[in-house]
Amino acid sequence: MGGDYGPAVLLPGLEQLLERRPDIHFLLFGRQEEVIPVLDRLPRLKEKAEFFHCEIAVRMDAKPSQALRQGRWKSSMWRAVEAVKNGEADVCVSAGNTGALMAMSKFCLRTMANIERPAIAAIWPTVRAESIVLDVGATIGADAQQLTDFAILGAGMARALFSIEKPTVGLLNVGVEEIKGQEEVKEAGRMLREAALPTMSYHGFVEGDDIGAGTTDVVVSEGFAGNIALKTAEGTAKQISGYLRSAMRRTLRARIGYLFARDAFRRLREKMDVRKVNGGVFLGLNGIVVKSHGGTDAEGFASAVELGYDMVRNNLLEKISNDLARFHRRIGPDKNKTDA
Amino acid sequence: MGGDYGPAVLLPGLEQLLERRPDIHFLLFGRQEEVIPVLDRLPRLKEKAEFFHCEIAVRMDAKPSQALRQGRWKSSMWRAVEAVKNGEADVCVSAGNTGALMAMSKFCLRTMANIERPAIAAIWPTVRAESIVLDVGATIGADAQQLTDFAILGAGMARALFSIEKPTVGLLNVGVEEIKGQEEVKEAGRMLREAALPTMSYHGFVEGDDIGAGTTDVVVSEGFAGNIALKTAEGTAKQISGYLRSAMRRTLRARIGYLFARDAFRRLREKMDVRKVNGGVFLGLNGIVVKSHGGTDAEGFASAVELGYDMVRNNLLEKISNDLARFHRRIGPDKNKTDA
Repeated sequence: MGGDYGPAVLLPGLEQLLERRPDIHFLLFGRQEEVIPVLDRLPRLKEKAEFFHCEIAVRMDAKPSQALRQGRWKSSMWRAVEAVKNGEADVCVSAGNTGALMAMSKFCLRTMANIERPAIAAIWPTVRAESIVLDVGATIGADAQQLTDFAILGAGMARALFSIEKPTVGLLNVGVEEIKGQEEVKEAGRMLREAALPTMSYHGFVEGDDIGAGTTDVVVSEGFAGNIALKTAEGTAKQISGYLRSAMRRTLRARIGYLFARDAFRRLREKMDVRKVNGGVFLGLNGIVVKSHGGTDAEGFASAVELGYDMVRNNLLEKISNDLARFHRRIGPDKNKTDA
Repeated sequence: MGGDYGPAVLLPGLEQLLERRPDIHFLLFGRQEEVIPVLDRLPRLKEKAEFFHCEIAVRMDAKPSQALRQGRWKSSMWRAVEAVKNGEADVCVSAGNTGALMAMSKFCLRTMANIERPAIAAIWPTVRAESIVLDVGATIGADAQQLTDFAILGAGMARALFSIEKPTVGLLNVGVEEIKGQEEVKEAGRMLREAALPTMSYHGFVEGDDIGAGTTDVVVSEGFAGNIALKTAEGTAKQISGYLRSAMRRTLRARIGYLFARDAFRRLREKMDVRKVNGGVFLGLNGIVVKSHGGTDAEGFASAVELGYDMVRNNLLEKISNDLARFHRRIGPDKNKTDA
């Protein structure tokens, strides 16, 4: 029900995805007045989907506490998350209200053993390929233990998605000499180095410009700086696209040049297409939840669902929980804090 | 003496700048073996400059404490900062070691009355024009009082540089609903709203993508997130330039298109040219210090010096200290902490 356009755009995305991933079975939760008319026009999807009517849909502008109060047990968002909890679904994907989705996911799925707080992971296109950046907005001011947990979550995701045996992991820090970096970041670096996990290669600190350069497969940050990095990169990409567009329209010569180089521009647009990397993944919960961008179109929503599909196929949760258990055995029970 | 190329590149930048700003008088501090041969080839600059030989030059990789220990009183960097302190120079510009320059500037110039910690301000090209972003790396984890001080410093710089009577000021925050933002940021917002200063218009919170959109003239952040935002934007711009370059080289059609649209691409490159906005400004000290990018060329160094020139001409320090005094009168002596 979520996103800027609701079922009218999201369901056609699922129909598209079925071409690439014909073995998906969908459980759809929403208001029948809005879903059924769209579904009736998409016979292939209809055949592969079960629909569950829910009277309540969480509003995009609802506060998380409000959404929980009004939507627990019965809203379409809750029931989609609950389907993961009950083992009816392998992954939940929503284009709805991020805060509400995180609140419901935490409440319903709970954090994994050995994890105190969840993280949101983003897939970041880089010069080399793609990297995973987390946390981009779930946890402000993470401590050293939480940062190392994020490193393990992110490395597990990289192993599941990119088929890398031993992904490289960097801790986001500032490189300017006069500030020594946050204490938590330094401590997390020491912990990761000492743990010497077989499932990741700890690279050390990275800076903001290392993200786009693809210096490491995984970049770990607490949620405040991570969110600001993500939004700043999106803003910069938008700004440069704008410059490029206006430069290409300005003169006749530029327009002719544009016509010749049209394929090159198309390629560039594809490279910069955020829809292809749509989907923030909630990590650290007992279940996989993917948050699609609210403003996405059908293709973007299909990417978000596909992302969830790929993680399930590659046993993300199993990888992560093994890695966590191994790490917490290594650092020993005295340093070990677990979720209550 | 600093920067990747030293006097051989920096001095020609000064010679260039004299064409635009013929009333500058330079005090040059450095090692005579390196400076004099270059200066001898630049007669116009030589006429407008006094040279002071300094045996010691702070190394680019020296730690701030090391630089202070070895270079205090006598290094070229120290003596350039000291010239500002003694009133012999209006502004100090260096392309050297950032950490050492900040340490020496703090030690020599001291923070202004009512300011606890300095900030580094960057000029950020936006869709609309340019904005000032601070702190980009001097102060990690600023408290509410320090953030409001940064707001005043940044607004003063905007008034001096952009000739705006009442610049808009935003506090950098995360917009995701489930996290309510850092407490310090919220408290700083309350303080700025209550103070209702006549010299700035407090806009509220802004997110990472608002920086490039030019939503406010000034964006305030503590140094960790601010530094990461700056580096991430630089990285993203570099990444997209790389995509564009390789797209335009890929096919014959694209190359022909490039030839036609060459002027448009030149315009785009100019828009994205970081040299034009070169210079991090140290704010909150009893004197103006500008840090040029170490890897700058002559033109970029000229921009950094010109930035310092413009701020002096527009009475930056006077504006800032009046604003600070007014603000601290408004919030009252009980809330007022001053630098020891």
